Amino acid sequence: MDYRIEKDTLGEVQVPKDKYWGAQTERSRNNFKIGPEASMPHEIIEAFAYLKKAAAYANFDLNVLSQEKRDAIAQVCDEIIAGKLDDQFPLVIWQTGSGTQSNMNVNEVIANRAQVLAGFGIGEGEPVLKANDDVNKSQSSNDTYPTAMHIAAYKAVIESTIPGVIQLKNTLAAKAKEYKDVVKIGRTHLMDATPLTLGQEISGYVAQLEHGLKALQHTLPHLAELALGGTAVGTGLNTPVNYDVVVAKHIADFTKLPFVTAPNKFEALAAHDAIVETHGALKQLAVSLYKIANDIRMLASGPRSGIGEIIIPANEPGSSIMPGKVNPTQCEALTMVAAQVLGNDVTISFSGTQGQYELNVFKPVMAANFIQSAKLLGDACVSFDEHCAQGIEPNHKRIQELVDNSLMLVTALNTKIGYYKAAEIAQTAHANGTTLKEEAVRLGYVTPEDFDLWVDPKKMI
Amino acid sequence: MDYRIEKDTLGEVQVPKDKYWGAQTERSRNNFKIGPEASMPHEIIEAFAYLKKAAAYANFDLNVLSQEKRDAIAQVCDEIIAGKLDDQFPLVIWQTGSGTQSNMNVNEVIANRAQVLAGFGIGEGEPVLKANDDVNKSQSSNDTYPTAMHIAAYKAVIESTIPGVIQLKNTLAAKAKEYKDVVKIGRTHLMDATPLTLGQEISGYVAQLEHGLKALQHTLPHLAELALGGTAVGTGLNTPVNYDVVVAKHIADFTKLPFVTAPNKFEALAAHDAIVETHGALKQLAVSLYKIANDIRMLASGPRSGIGEIIIPANEPGSSIMPGKVNPTQCEALTMVAAQVLGNDVTISFSGTQGQYELNVFKPVMAANFIQSAKLLGDACVSFDEHCAQGIEPNHKRIQELVDNSLMLVTALNTKIGYYKAAEIAQTAHANGTTLKEEAVRLGYVTPEDFDLWVDPKKMI
Amino acid sequence: MDYRIEKDTLGEVQVPKDKYWGAQTERSRNNFKIGPEASMPHEIIEAFAYLKKAAAYANFDLNVLSQEKRDAIAQVCDEIIAGKLDDQFPLVIWQTGSGTQSNMNVNEVIANRAQVLAGFGIGEGEPVLKANDDVNKSQSSNDTYPTAMHIAAYKAVIESTIPGVIQLKNTLAAKAKEYKDVVKIGRTHLMDATPLTLGQEISGYVAQLEHGLKALQHTLPHLAELALGGTAVGTGLNTPVNYDVVVAKHIADFTKLPFVTAPNKFEALAAHDAIVETHGALKQLAVSLYKIANDIRMLASGPRSGIGEIIIPANEPGSSIMPGKVNPTQCEALTMVAAQVLGNDVTISFSGTQGQYELNVFKPVMAANFIQSAKLLGDACVSFDEHCAQGIEPNHKRIQELVDNSLMLVTALNTKIGYYKAAEIAQTAHANGTTLKEEAVRLGYVTPEDFDLWVDPKKMI
Amino acid sequence: MDYRIEKDTLGEVQVPKDKYWGAQTERSRNNFKIGPEASMPHEIIEAFAYLKKAAAYANFDLNVLSQEKRDAIAQVCDEIIAGKLDDQFPLVIWQTGSGTQSNMNVNEVIANRAQVLAGFGIGEGEPVLKANDDVNKSQSSNDTYPTAMHIAAYKAVIESTIPGVIQLKNTLAAKAKEYKDVVKIGRTHLMDATPLTLGQEISGYVAQLEHGLKALQHTLPHLAELALGGTAVGTGLNTPVNYDVVVAKHIADFTKLPFVTAPNKFEALAAHDAIVETHGALKQLAVSLYKIANDIRMLASGPRSGIGEIIIPANEPGSSIMPGKVNPTQCEALTMVAAQVLGNDVTISFSGTQGQYELNVFKPVMAANFIQSAKLLGDACVSFDEHCAQGIEPNHKRIQELVDNSLMLVTALNTKIGYYKAAEIAQTAHANGTTLKEEAVRLGYVTPEDFDLWVDPKKMI
Repeated sequence: MDYRIEKDTLGEVQVPKDKYWGAQTERSRNNFKIGPEASMPHEIIEAFAYLKKAAAYANFDLNVLSQEKRDAIAQVCDEIIAGKLDDQFPLVIWQTGSGTQSNMNVNEVIANRAQVLAGFGIGEGEPVLKANDDVNKSQSSNDTYPTAMHIAAYKAVIESTIPGVIQLKNTLAAKAKEYKDVVKIGRTHLMDATPLTLGQEISGYVAQLEHGLKALQHTLPHLAELALGGTAVGTGLNTPVNYDVVVAKHIADFTKLPFVTAPNKFEALAAHDAIVETHGALKQLAVSLYKIANDIRMLASGPRSGIGEIIIPANEPGSSIMPGKVNPTQCEALTMVAAQVLGNDVTISFSGTQGQYELNVFKPVMAANFIQSAKLLGDACVSFDEHCAQGIEPNHKRIQELVDNSLMLVTALNTKIGYYKAAEIAQTAHANGTTLKEEAVRLGYVTPEDFDLWVDPKKMI
Repeated sequence: MDYRIEKDTLGEVQVPKDKYWGAQTERSRNNFKIGPEASMPHEIIEAFAYLKKAAAYANFDLNVLSQEKRDAIAQVCDEIIAGKLDDQFPLVIWQTGSGTQSNMNVNEVIANRAQVLAGFGIGEGEPVLKANDDVNKSQSSNDTYPTAMHIAAYKAVIESTIPGVIQLKNTLAAKAKEYKDVVKIGRTHLMDATPLTLGQEISGYVAQLEHGLKALQHTLPHLAELALGGTAVGTGLNTPVNYDVVVAKHIADFTKLPFVTAPNKFEALAAHDAIVETHGALKQLAVSLYKIANDIRMLASGPRSGIGEIIIPANEPGSSIMPGKVNPTQCEALTMVAAQVLGNDVTISFSGTQGQYELNVFKPVMAANFIQSAKLLGDACVSFDEHCAQGIEPNHKRIQELVDNSLMLVTALNTKIGYYKAAEIAQTAHANGTTLKEEAVRLGYVTPEDFDLWVDPKKMI
Repeated sequence: MDYRIEKDTLGEVQVPKDKYWGAQTERSRNNFKIGPEASMPHEIIEAFAYLKKAAAYANFDLNVLSQEKRDAIAQVCDEIIAGKLDDQFPLVIWQTGSGTQSNMNVNEVIANRAQVLAGFGIGEGEPVLKANDDVNKSQSSNDTYPTAMHIAAYKAVIESTIPGVIQLKNTLAAKAKEYKDVVKIGRTHLMDATPLTLGQEISGYVAQLEHGLKALQHTLPHLAELALGGTAVGTGLNTPVNYDVVVAKHIADFTKLPFVTAPNKFEALAAHDAIVETHGALKQLAVSLYKIANDIRMLASGPRSGIGEIIIPANEPGSSIMPGKVNPTQCEALTMVAAQVLGNDVTISFSGTQGQYELNVFKPVMAANFIQSAKLLGDACVSFDEHCAQGIEPNHKRIQELVDNSLMLVTALNTKIGYYKAAEIAQTAHANGTTLKEEAVRLGYVTPEDFDLWVDPKKMI
Repeated sequence: MDYRIEKDTLGEVQVPKDKYWGAQTERSRNNFKIGPEASMPHEIIEAFAYLKKAAAYANFDLNVLSQEKRDAIAQVCDEIIAGKLDDQFPLVIWQTGSGTQSNMNVNEVIANRAQVLAGFGIGEGEPVLKANDDVNKSQSSNDTYPTAMHIAAYKAVIESTIPGVIQLKNTLAAKAKEYKDVVKIGRTHLMDATPLTLGQEISGYVAQLEHGLKALQHTLPHLAELALGGTAVGTGLNTPVNYDVVVAKHIADFTKLPFVTAPNKFEALAAHDAIVETHGALKQLAVSLYKIANDIRMLASGPRSGIGEIIIPANEPGSSIMPGKVNPTQCEALTMVAAQVLGNDVTISFSGTQGQYELNVFKPVMAANFIQSAKLLGDACVSFDEHCAQGIEPNHKRIQELVDNSLMLVTALNTKIGYYKAAEIAQTAHANGTTLKEEAVRLGYVTPEDFDLWVDPKKMI
């Protein structure tokens, strides 16, 4: 490979000739060969492009950057956002915990790409932009990286998680309505219990997701607070007056999301409680989705030796050895995602505790885990919705069979003959393999007419 | 020990003669010898007393219970709340996952205690109250236990966590104000960075706790939703019309807390996302408190070989072997509590995923972990506040020494001479063990006058 | 209450007159009102008694303590081990993270109790023993507390966890043998699959527990390493030559467990990886037990609308509202214990990461969580064994019914007619609600005779 | 894009013309658009290649597959292992929880690639191999996927984790030896304590890693057990006699690793406790590495306002705003990896609990998290070793300064003048800002000569 020589404050470095990145990126590549290359989420890179552009605009507005430089920076940022420079960001999550090296990667790419757009070779001619002094002006990694985290996290939640969950919730809500009169056996402790309708059962899922969405929404104002303007330790050293407010406004404009400057920059650098907070809500959604998906696979189990009260779509052959088998695969994908999110929550919470003094240096791992959770949940909800939930149908015959047989219909007699006599009826029917009615009458506690009147699943819901 | 014979639907059981509990409690005692006796949190028992009393009132209001029975129930409930029957609840957390046995424990104690208050021996005379048919009227364990969970959890948050966190936050806010002009060195990556004031540093902690309290408050409306009225599977079987609303209102009255009936009872029985949600906020507070306490112990480290920028109270001899040692023991207690809460969050989230069909049967373990977290956080904040935070004082001499020596003051020169020359000054001073000013002048980048004018920690905050 | 005045290096303290503890214990009581009183596990106190006695013996052996003092110390230690002084240890888990205050609590109680045994009042007469100079001789909290942790943890594993798991494993092994010929339907993805025997299914549980026990055993040598002799920072300052080896030998003698001195005392104070390691094995057992208990409750579900292939004991009325209901309550207790252990593992691992320099100051929280896990697992296995596993019986009728109906028996045809034709048979039978044989013959792929020959569940196991 | 038509038991599917995969892979691609494409770890694909080849050999050995088919299968497997078909495995982790679709992906690629190698177009001519009947012969996803998990996991541990940890341990062991006489201040509770040598401090890290490696080794025999031969539910249906033993032997031969057939196949399909067990050991290593890396960054903190006792390499400019700053970036990468592994452990343990009946359907998420942990730990240890640990050097001047000043040297006087007088000396020196010697003499407790004799840091280690 051909190289060029780049310099930073520690000396010279060989960099691949055709790449826009510079000395600091290359040092990081060499020093952190941990896991697959380029693992830093591209959502973070894109978020950096928004903030670098916004910073250039704010710096221009506040008279510390020329219009030419502002536009040169903005032009490259737009290219990054458009995905045209995706191969210029080779760094990994497992680098410095402040993300400094990814910040410098972006600075270097912008400076060198601007040079090329201006008609020069990389590193040739008078620099159009300096990576530190122009592109990074009024910034520090310590405030840019957490700003990029919040932008990327917010976008992932808004663009992936929330629409995915809503799509699934809407389907379930329609099913709850559609099956509101399908009376079925209830189950508690996995044991037969009193009846409810399939619609009621599904309405519980809808309520879970509604609560989860509300919880998620509650966390967003904290996540909307941006660290930018705090620079190195939160004081805003080397920034023009009012810069933090102006730059947040530009970010809000460019992303069309309600970002604001963080009222306290010290918190915004040294702690990442906003990430902990919103991911806590993602974890809550994962908990809810786990319950829903697990219920659905249990209800659909069979076809002949399981519960079998609902039918779900047969999307693919289920077994490489058992012909004709169809499995609840979407439930499995969704519950695996939930398991991942539960683990990610521990990584994020642990990392959140480990800020020291003015900086938390677990930023990349927090960002990567957050973005993974937010996007997986969104994707998995859509997948589950389209390939499973929309196709859920009651197996009416099976449902009727089970409700008719149930011993727990006896509960309806509690208020008529008392708990103890009702229990005796159920236990006797269980022991004898008979029906409740037979035993109720035989024991002399209820007349056949009263039994039919009182013990009616349709009235028990 | 003397015994009496009690009966339930499975047959006869020997019960200690002088205890109010009955057959089902005794069966549970015998069948679940897991961990220390009586581990079911007494906060849950107290919450049951509130709800049993409220249920009696609602049942009376709705004409399904006599005034005499209502008052008999209420009288015993008041005794339980007053702590007069604490030795009547011997059951453990590790019982049935619905908490049925603790529900029955309460039912049995109320019935038998009422019998005694009416002048009879336990089990003698015509029963004043029947455990199942009267005390448990219009109820099921499946809706009472989650209701008790919410009552106990809500009370613990309101009575312990929130006041504790607020007390600590107020102290820190006062310290932030008091030390707003104490300029000190900042540290990022544990390395010397640009200065800030001690007040600014502490203000970050205040912002963390304010965000945490807000997050906690956001979760409370979900926690205020009560399952009561759902009975066995959420349908409200065997309850009079409007019972759920009326009983929630009585609970709100008796506890003076804003409880309401859950709009969806199926969710309220089968999932405990409200517990997951609020505990998520407790975990976030634990994350914040960890960071704060760990910073404080690092800042107070020394006395001669550490950071030593702040002085914290010497509350006890710190070592059994090293005479004169004083340790940051309150920081240690608080961080241990945080570690506990992080683990409890996993227990709770895991348990939250495991609801099956109409019931989640991890209720007692969720309740116990929640209550432990909420109370430990409250207690630990108060302890930390009174025995540590209130006594924090700056070590002015040490702070001054460190800020004067710092190489990172060079950052102020970035906007004057550029990042690269500034770096050269810092690196040279570091290598030579000299001051920034010496090297700045020697390298010819800055005049002594400009240096003094530009590099002033007080202007860098 | 009456008080006496005690002194330590920080000054005077009022101590309840009738208690053996002294100034430092009392300071801790006052300074750490976090959670219930006396929460420091009594297993730790008992372990301290073993080690204090052993230290006295070693000090005597090595000529730094008189025989009189040795015996005075030993006498009180024996009382502590016998449970005679249980009300003398009021401190909480949430104290200093080194456990110093509990070490001093033990030192003070031993000194004052010895004074009383010598015929004096507490604090009267010439001191028989000095808490720091005699009882704590050749020790530091920094090496005694981790030693006590290891002793208590080892004992809990040996006395509770291992026998409990073995008892359950033996029962399951007997069941696996007993039901080795009971052919039943298998289930994968919760869906009907090819058959196996009930004995085979249960043999998987046995294999899990055997692996878990082996894993647990592997961790014990690390746990057997004792920190004692390291004193303040691991160097063994202020200990006589060979003290560490001698004292470990006495502990091994007194406890009859294979304790040895840790080869590296720096690790033994600053890290608690042995606790992390053994608790990791406890967590593995929890994972296994969860799977087992959950399977059993699913297999026993019903009685009429579930799987119902096995019958488990009906130990208590299962519902306060549904008469005659019986629930898998032991499964629920065991799975709740597993959920607790999973959370405890996070608390312990997190705490394990947080050692700083020469000391990990999360000792009490690690000890408490470990002991809880070890004992709960042991207790829950015994409870589950006695009240559930021993009573497991196959529901032969139901098992036969389900195996006869299964479509997955078609798998036996793969090697005869190929996967694709076999799949067609199964899918057609499923669609038509017919039997495999009917469709196999109708499609012309198999003769009735061959079908009966080839598709025999008994040959498929 | 051009497509060809493929068929499976559910009907026709359009597949990209130039790809070797078939209908089932394509269905999975369409049905599981969750997260980035091709996220199924390539280590799993490679492991599948080993096992498919081994299965072909075993099938041939046992006379159920022709030599031609065996060799055709083996040839493609060798191509997969050589990385020549990397773009043929597009599936994601978040698919069916049995990994069936990845098993079929491998089956389909092998069959179609063999067809091409035989000179035909894909899907043209008489099939050389059938995906289900030949490539998957004597197999089920249910036994192949867990086998691939164990192969991939074992290889990652042996090839990445263990050598990485050993490399770091060896460096630290050399440093421990090199600095065995560098006396420095000890710190407990972050506070100054009695001295030890830098070599002793580092020896604690070595001991941690040695224990961790031992723990990891202990888990490998369980991980070496292979499920292959269990087929659908563990019974080994449709496999020739002795197949399981033979196939495991071939896998051992091909991988040169000590794989054996699992003694109990029911456990090997329904539970993944071996993955839980070995990952538990990885987590323990993460705990140890966290402690080590965090200590090193604290010891290296400064350069002027921190601890500064050791110097670590300056690998890259540390700040985009603070010129001349150098940070402990390798420590940060390693601690972030540790945080990831702790979260992964929760995902894996949770998933491990959720096996149901004969199958655990969280296989892909367990595999992916395990492989990530094992490789990240290995990579991060190597990176940390090469770019940090090897370059650690004592800052002798700073170390001397701190040890000379320490008040905790007073501990050496305990055995001479008692704990109480020693404490008085230390407290007075602390209060007056004087030296221990000054106060010891002034208080009249020690002569200057005795002080110098007794209080010698070199004798305290």
